[in-house]
Amino acid sequence: MAPRWKWKGAEAKAFAEPVSETVSELQSSLAQTKASGFLSSCNVLLSVEPEQAELLDRCCFGRTVVSVEKDKRWIQLSFEEAFFLFYKLKCIKISLHGRSLVNEVDLWRSIRSFKPNFATSYKAYSHLRSKNWIVRSGLQYGVDFVVYRHHPSLVHSEYAVLVQSISGNDRLKVWSDIHCSVRLTGTVAKTLLVLYVNGNVNTENMNLPLCLEDYTVEEQTIRRWSPELSREDETKT
Amino acid sequence: MAPRWKWKGAEAKAFAEPVSETVSELQSSLAQTKASGFLSSCNVLLSVEPEQAELLDRCCFGRTVVSVEKDKRWIQLSFEEAFFLFYKLKCIKISLHGRSLVNEVDLWRSIRSFKPNFATSYKAYSHLRSKNWIVRSGLQYGVDFVVYRHHPSLVHSEYAVLVQSISGNDRLKVWSDIHCSVRLTGTVAKTLLVLYVNGNVNTENMNLPLCLEDYTVEEQTIRRWSPELSREDETKT
Repeated sequence: MAPRWKWKGAEAKAFAEPVSETVSELQSSLAQTKASGFLSSCNVLLSVEPEQAELLDRCCFGRTVVSVEKDKRWIQLSFEEAFFLFYKLKCIKISLHGRSLVNEVDLWRSIRSFKPNFATSYKAYSHLRSKNWIVRSGLQYGVDFVVYRHHPSLVHSEYAVLVQSISGNDRLKVWSDIHCSVRLTGTVAKTLLVLYVNGNVNTENMNLPLCLEDYTVEEQTIRRWSPELSREDETKT
Repeated sequence: MAPRWKWKGAEAKAFAEPVSETVSELQSSLAQTKASGFLSSCNVLLSVEPEQAELLDRCCFGRTVVSVEKDKRWIQLSFEEAFFLFYKLKCIKISLHGRSLVNEVDLWRSIRSFKPNFATSYKAYSHLRSKNWIVRSGLQYGVDFVVYRHHPSLVHSEYAVLVQSISGNDRLKVWSDIHCSVRLTGTVAKTLLVLYVNGNVNTENMNLPLCLEDYTVEEQTIRRWSPELSREDETKT
């Protein structure tokens, strides 16, 4: 399925401003000002300057929280987004109960205590982000993530992502669930992308972000096959 | 959600010809001619007279199989449909490998050997049929059944049904599955109806249709709640 651009010229604009470059710009800007966030039981609140808020929006990290402060913006990041900025891009600091979590193991453990399946969901998130896909929550489609080729103002999301793991309380175990997911994602013009996060995970490592290196990610797309569209003689359709 | 009739006058036609009456007519017609079907590993093939085929179609039991015979029609019944006609309406006979399964326990065991979750799916099917709903396969929507108020030529199906049991390899165990199912059924203008088939099932009875009496069925509908449509002051919407 070809990407569905939202307006004429959107593709050219996306081509002129690659996501990777905006992320690099954001990374150096946040690192310079030592941006810092607070960890809560369901997200991370990051305090940034107005220009940084705009950069975060262009890269689609988090959502702006309405506030009256003029020289400061508050951004609500998901755990995956926050850990990506902290661990992969190394451009933000995060504190819990007023104490900065300098050590990545501390932050990892804290987040995992709030979200037990964080290891696999973060692995999937960072896997997609590292390939410069824009990753947002897939809540409204009953999936874990939706991914965009570029900013959602330019293009519709192309894939609905389900993250599966060996141990997890997972989806797609029965045919009716597969039918349901494929039908829904087809209806909203997306393709179902299943990411199998697995590997020989050492239990000692489970509490460390190091376990991420033990994980591998396998990708599969599932879609309906339409005999009419796949015929040799397409002129008759 | 109000029933969506397919054409003007469909509601009046449905009211004039209640499903229960057509089913009674079918029941006495099949019983008279001692209609008989063959059990295979995935369905039951029933041989009937042309008028009976029309009655079966009006009650939405099975699908006609194309054949060249003029005075006979072949109808393909699902296990649930066949067992309902055999056990509940007592109007057809069924044979396996040329031997008539006179005893209901024999038929029950044969079907259960082909479809292990037959007890719960039949309980759900007969529960809905006994209340004069038309019940069809929900395969294309990733659910077990869809139910119609009357014949599908008159009205769209109103509910997408998922059958759940304590022991089963079931759906709706994680939030994303619930989101997915509710979103899809909403998109196709249906309501998600979950039937929980449970009860103090005696293991000795599991091989007998008697276990159906030990089962109870609990119904729940799940749908999205839209704050805009539920406001006290509806004039402002």
